[in-house]
Amino acid sequence: MQNFVFQNETKIIFGRDEEQVVGQEAKKYGKKLLLHYGGGSIKKNGLYQRVVESLQAQGIEIFELSGVKPNPRVSLVREGVTLCKENNIGFILAVGGGSVIDSAKAIAAGVNYEGDVWDFFDGKNSVNDCLPLGVILTIPAAGSESSGGSVITNEDGSYKRAVGHETMRPRFAILNPVLSYTLPSYQTACGITDMMSHILERYFTREKNVELTDRLCEATLKTIINNAHTVLDDPTNYDARAEIMWAGTIAHNDSLNTGRIGDWGSHDIEHEISGIYDIAHGAGLAIIFPAWMKYVYKHDVNRFVQFANRVWDVEIDLNDLEKTALQGIQKTEQFFRLIGMPVKLNEVDIGEEHFEEMARKGTERGPIGNFIKLAEKDVFEIYQLAK
Amino acid sequence: MQNFVFQNETKIIFGRDEEQVVGQEAKKYGKKLLLHYGGGSIKKNGLYQRVVESLQAQGIEIFELSGVKPNPRVSLVREGVTLCKENNIGFILAVGGGSVIDSAKAIAAGVNYEGDVWDFFDGKNSVNDCLPLGVILTIPAAGSESSGGSVITNEDGSYKRAVGHETMRPRFAILNPVLSYTLPSYQTACGITDMMSHILERYFTREKNVELTDRLCEATLKTIINNAHTVLDDPTNYDARAEIMWAGTIAHNDSLNTGRIGDWGSHDIEHEISGIYDIAHGAGLAIIFPAWMKYVYKHDVNRFVQFANRVWDVEIDLNDLEKTALQGIQKTEQFFRLIGMPVKLNEVDIGEEHFEEMARKGTERGPIGNFIKLAEKDVFEIYQLAK
Repeated sequence: MQNFVFQNETKIIFGRDEEQVVGQEAKKYGKKLLLHYGGGSIKKNGLYQRVVESLQAQGIEIFELSGVKPNPRVSLVREGVTLCKENNIGFILAVGGGSVIDSAKAIAAGVNYEGDVWDFFDGKNSVNDCLPLGVILTIPAAGSESSGGSVITNEDGSYKRAVGHETMRPRFAILNPVLSYTLPSYQTACGITDMMSHILERYFTREKNVELTDRLCEATLKTIINNAHTVLDDPTNYDARAEIMWAGTIAHNDSLNTGRIGDWGSHDIEHEISGIYDIAHGAGLAIIFPAWMKYVYKHDVNRFVQFANRVWDVEIDLNDLEKTALQGIQKTEQFFRLIGMPVKLNEVDIGEEHFEEMARKGTERGPIGNFIKLAEKDVFEIYQLAK
Repeated sequence: MQNFVFQNETKIIFGRDEEQVVGQEAKKYGKKLLLHYGGGSIKKNGLYQRVVESLQAQGIEIFELSGVKPNPRVSLVREGVTLCKENNIGFILAVGGGSVIDSAKAIAAGVNYEGDVWDFFDGKNSVNDCLPLGVILTIPAAGSESSGGSVITNEDGSYKRAVGHETMRPRFAILNPVLSYTLPSYQTACGITDMMSHILERYFTREKNVELTDRLCEATLKTIINNAHTVLDDPTNYDARAEIMWAGTIAHNDSLNTGRIGDWGSHDIEHEISGIYDIAHGAGLAIIFPAWMKYVYKHDVNRFVQFANRVWDVEIDLNDLEKTALQGIQKTEQFFRLIGMPVKLNEVDIGEEHFEEMARKGTERGPIGNFIKLAEKDVFEIYQLAK
């Protein structure tokens, strides 16, 4: 086990109707707030109205910036930064899923910075002084509600880049499973894939002697798998929605990461796809993760055997560990398919035409991943396995 | 799943040699510090010297209060409160195990309070304004290093009482597994029992639909069980000590408690024993928990079957679920015995003479426990089962 520092200060407020406390929580951070959200769905389902009422009841002045799209764009982030600077706004409330939260975090990072906010994402500068932000989560998926990370796409060149900083962690996150009832099946399944991928990225480490975090990862994966079919078959099942929503946060709150180095190669490989093609991040991961697994498993067969056995209940064949490992990978791919995800690039009409470009861009800052280091040619091979 | 709020702000600094950063962490909270510890063991093993050097290097003025004993006493807490008030001390550093940390928390709670600190423990007043405190952990057991709770004994009447408050949570906790190498086997085993009990108290809930936390509890229990024999047979095995130490924190940092109501009856029942007899808390729990299980399991046999199956790998006998449940209880008792714990009161020379008194005192503020509510006669019966 490696030395580590773990701290996650996000206050989780979980359960039915909890969005009603947003005004009380937000007022701790000032009287002027940017309400940041996506399309109009929160207006249709009444959430917008409830949030505004709760904020107004505390005398909070609301500025609004909507229009966040999946794979959130730096152009909207820049608008948000300007809006906050011009109006001296001191707090950002993100109402939505990972895209809205990531966009809010990027705005928060940019407000007290003189330069362009993209500087943080292409490594020209580091986040330093970030506005506080809060979250009302509507899509369990990205885990951004209690992480310190943000992923933003720059339309100018189709770059999708991640930044992480402790001060970007939301001060509070309100998680009401009922808010996820109306998610379409496909989006629910994308979220499930995304949160599973966050655990898998951490699970596939080369670090030995990380039994507790291995088992915590497996526990969270099993819970997600067990509840996935329920939420897809019965979208208003509170308990299953609650398990999935809380699991999505646990998956990415860094507790499953302690003492180990995660991989994150699949995320980088996927970002190149959704940076160009604008497919859902979860769908991209359902395609890339099994391909990545097939490409790397021989570097630590035993870890893949443990995964097959403990997560997928595959019996260990001691005479053929590789077979057991491959069965675990197969089960993963089958599961993604069962919940309605694509598992090959051709299923989402992506051909080979950008493989070289994506492999080059994905590795232009050096090899990616940690389970094994992937160079440009490795990434290209993984795209081939996923086609 | 019940609605919940979860927040744990303690910064965990984990790994070899990490006590060296204590000065840098402590100086964030002022220039005058109370160094609180137990006997002389930290002087013998050099930890004291390293801590003092790290603090002095940051120009921190150190006041000392040593002499904390197991089942820490309110009399020493009162001394600490006076010392802090007289010297305008703004931060408390606990170096030790749960007793030292609990004592430090009680001091921290008492400094900015006009009345007697025991008021918090007998319910006369609530903790409000608490000094910040930090921890260097030497005994993995109580989980107090990242909890908001403190248990103190009042020698005047042999009362042992718990208080919890969010502001009592340590600001940082330094966990170096090497510091636990020199623990005697018995104390190591007591710690293992204590941390397992913290999980069991949470596990045995009547709340349905708490799959994620059930599985996280089971994952942590299995890790402790798997590493217990290693740390007892090979006390300087870093990786096993690390698993145990981190598991002890996870067991009690409230993450395993979300969405459910824990029981805590066994802790209350045990507190009456160690309040009078001064046996180690862990040893008392090894005796009481199996007795409690035998007394209550029929109220939710299925939960005990799940426990037997998932934690102890007992095959489920679908024709005799009660048998499976009882096998899980038996395995728990056997495990405690195997690691050197007493599992009956007579093994620690405790007879029946105080059973009535303990049952009365333990329930004088009302029935205890939540899995089922235990009245005075129930607690008496549990003492009988444990004799």
